[in-house]
Amino acid sequence: MRPPYLLFLGDVQDQLAAKTAHGLVDWRPERCLGQLRLPGCKADCRLPEMSVREAAAAGCRTMIVAVANSGGWLAEHWVPVIVEALEAGMDVASGLHQRLAEIPAVAEAAARHGRALFDVRHPVHRFKTATGIKRTGKRLLTVGTDCSCGKKYTALALERELSARGRKATFRGTGQTGVMISGHGVAIDAVLADFIAGAAEWLTPDNDPDHWDLIEGQGSLFHPAFAGVTLGLIHGSQPDALVLCHEPTRTHMRGLPHQKLPGLRECLEANLQAARLTNPAVRAVGVAIDTHNLEPDRRATYLARVEDELGLPAVDPIATGVGRIADALW
Amino acid sequence: MRPPYLLFLGDVQDQLAAKTAHGLVDWRPERCLGQLRLPGCKADCRLPEMSVREAAAAGCRTMIVAVANSGGWLAEHWVPVIVEALEAGMDVASGLHQRLAEIPAVAEAAARHGRALFDVRHPVHRFKTATGIKRTGKRLLTVGTDCSCGKKYTALALERELSARGRKATFRGTGQTGVMISGHGVAIDAVLADFIAGAAEWLTPDNDPDHWDLIEGQGSLFHPAFAGVTLGLIHGSQPDALVLCHEPTRTHMRGLPHQKLPGLRECLEANLQAARLTNPAVRAVGVAIDTHNLEPDRRATYLARVEDELGLPAVDPIATGVGRIADALW
Repeated sequence: MRPPYLLFLGDVQDQLAAKTAHGLVDWRPERCLGQLRLPGCKADCRLPEMSVREAAAAGCRTMIVAVANSGGWLAEHWVPVIVEALEAGMDVASGLHQRLAEIPAVAEAAARHGRALFDVRHPVHRFKTATGIKRTGKRLLTVGTDCSCGKKYTALALERELSARGRKATFRGTGQTGVMISGHGVAIDAVLADFIAGAAEWLTPDNDPDHWDLIEGQGSLFHPAFAGVTLGLIHGSQPDALVLCHEPTRTHMRGLPHQKLPGLRECLEANLQAARLTNPAVRAVGVAIDTHNLEPDRRATYLARVEDELGLPAVDPIATGVGRIADALW
Repeated sequence: MRPPYLLFLGDVQDQLAAKTAHGLVDWRPERCLGQLRLPGCKADCRLPEMSVREAAAAGCRTMIVAVANSGGWLAEHWVPVIVEALEAGMDVASGLHQRLAEIPAVAEAAARHGRALFDVRHPVHRFKTATGIKRTGKRLLTVGTDCSCGKKYTALALERELSARGRKATFRGTGQTGVMISGHGVAIDAVLADFIAGAAEWLTPDNDPDHWDLIEGQGSLFHPAFAGVTLGLIHGSQPDALVLCHEPTRTHMRGLPHQKLPGLRECLEANLQAARLTNPAVRAVGVAIDTHNLEPDRRATYLARVEDELGLPAVDPIATGVGRIADALW
C-alpha cells in the first residue's frame, strides 16, 4: 500500500468501529494525511477533513477503508466514494471480509484507471493444518476479556520496547489493522476455519532462541461469536508468555448487550489452560489495561488493584508503557 | 447429487481417510453401487469394484470423491479419473477444500459434457457472526476426544432412534460426509473463521420446544489443529445436551503422533465448561464408544468401566444402539 493515506471512515456509529483508522494514526502517523467522513459519522481520528479531490491534491496515494464492522461487509452507499478515489488516481485498500474486487463498480473503476485494490483481510497464502510441533524461538500472545480491548496495542508496544532495548522482537499482526500497520501478517479471522491454527504456525515460524514474536491476539475465549478464532490462534501460537488485556469500563461483550464480561482471573486461567495444550510451560507475564475511559485519578488505584488481584505487573500500554512487562521476559 | 453413486477412493492410505465413503455406505447403502480404487489404495468399502465405464453402464449418475485428508487437497493424479467420469456422463461431487471447479481440466470437461460439479465443502450461504442469543427448541451436540471417533454416527443414530420413537428430531450435518448423507447442512470447517459460531446458529434455528437437533460435532477441543472449529461449533450450537465420543484404541491424536489423547473426564469437563458460555444449563447425557477395534469380549467390560467412571450411560452406537442415551433426553 503506497503511502500517504486518506482514511475513509464512512458513517460508522462509534469510535471502536474505526479502530483500523485509529491504529494507523497511532502507530503510523507519518503516513496518514487526512480523513474522509460521511454525514452522520460518529468516529473521528482528528485528522484534517478531506474530500477525495482534496486528498488527491494533497498527495494521498491510497485511500484506506479504515473501519471494521461485525460481519465485515461494505455498505453500498460507500461504493461511489471508493469509485471516486480510484478515478482521482488513488489505490484503495480495505480490511473487510467483502472483497473490493467483487464489487463490479469498484473492479471496473480500478481496471479503467489502472489502480490497485488491496483486500488485506484475504490471505494469499495456502495454509496447512497445524501440527502442534514445538518451534524454536519465544512467543508472547496477547489475550483479552473481549474484542477491541488493547491486544494489538500491547503487542506493538512490546515490540517497540524490546527493540529499544536492543532485543530481537517482531510484531505479528493477525487482524486487518495489525497487518496494515506492520505491512505483513495474516487476518486470521478470514482464514478457513480448518486452518486457523495452521495459519498461526505459519505466521510465527522457527526463530532464534532469543527472539520474541509479539503476537496480536484476536477476540476472546469468552466471546460467543469469535472464541473459535481465539482458541485456534492460541494453539497455533504456542505462546511461552501471555498478557491479559482488558478495558475496565466495558459493561458487556462488544456488540452483545446480553453477554457479560468474564472476570480477570477466570479469563486468564481459561487462556492458560487452553495454551497448555501446545505449550505446557506457558505462563502469564502481565496485564495490560486500557484506562483511557477511566478518570485519570482512578488509573493508579485500578492498576494497583489488578496487580494485587492477579500477582502480575499491570500497566496501561499507552499511559504507563509496557516496560514492566518487558522486564519479565526472559 | 443424483443417486446412485460410484464412490471414488483414490489411493488413500487407511480406512479413516475414506470415512466419507464409509459414512455413505453405512447410512445410505441403497445409493452406493460401487467403488473405484487406484493401485495402492488401502481403504475398502466392500462394494463391487467398478471402472468408470462399468459404473456408467450400471447406472451410476454421480461419482463422489469420497475421501478426506488433512488439508483437503485433491491429488493431481486423481484428475484424469474425474475427467473420465464426466466424459462418461456422470456428475462429480467432492467434499475437499479444493474446489473441483477450480481445476481447469475438470471445469472444462464438466462444461463440455454438460455435467454438474458439487463442492459440498463450500457453503453457498453468507453467514452472519454469532449473537449468542438463546433459541427455542432443544439441541444435542456430539463432542469427542479426537477427530474421527464417532461424532457423526452417534448423532445420526440418535436421530434414527428418536424418530423411531415418534419424537421430533433432525440430524444437523457439519462435515462433508454428514452433509452428503443428509443432503443439507454446513461443512463448518470450511467457513471463514469469523463465522464458525454464526454458521452453527444458522444451522440450528429456533424450533418447536419438543424438537431435538442432533448436531454432528467436529474435531476435538484437544486437537491442536482443529480445536477452534470445535469451540465455535459448541458456542453456536448452544447445546442443552452433550454426548462424549471416544475410540478406545487410539494412542494419539489423529495425524499427530506426538499429541496424546485427553482423559475422558478431563475432555468432558472442558467441553461442558466451554458450552456453558452460551448455555449455562448444558449437561452431559451419555458416552458413545466406537468399540469396533476392541476384542468383542472386551466391549461390555470397557463400556461398564466408562459408565462407572463418568456416571453416564455408555453405549456403542453401532453395536449396542443409542437407546439408553435417547432415554435420557427430556
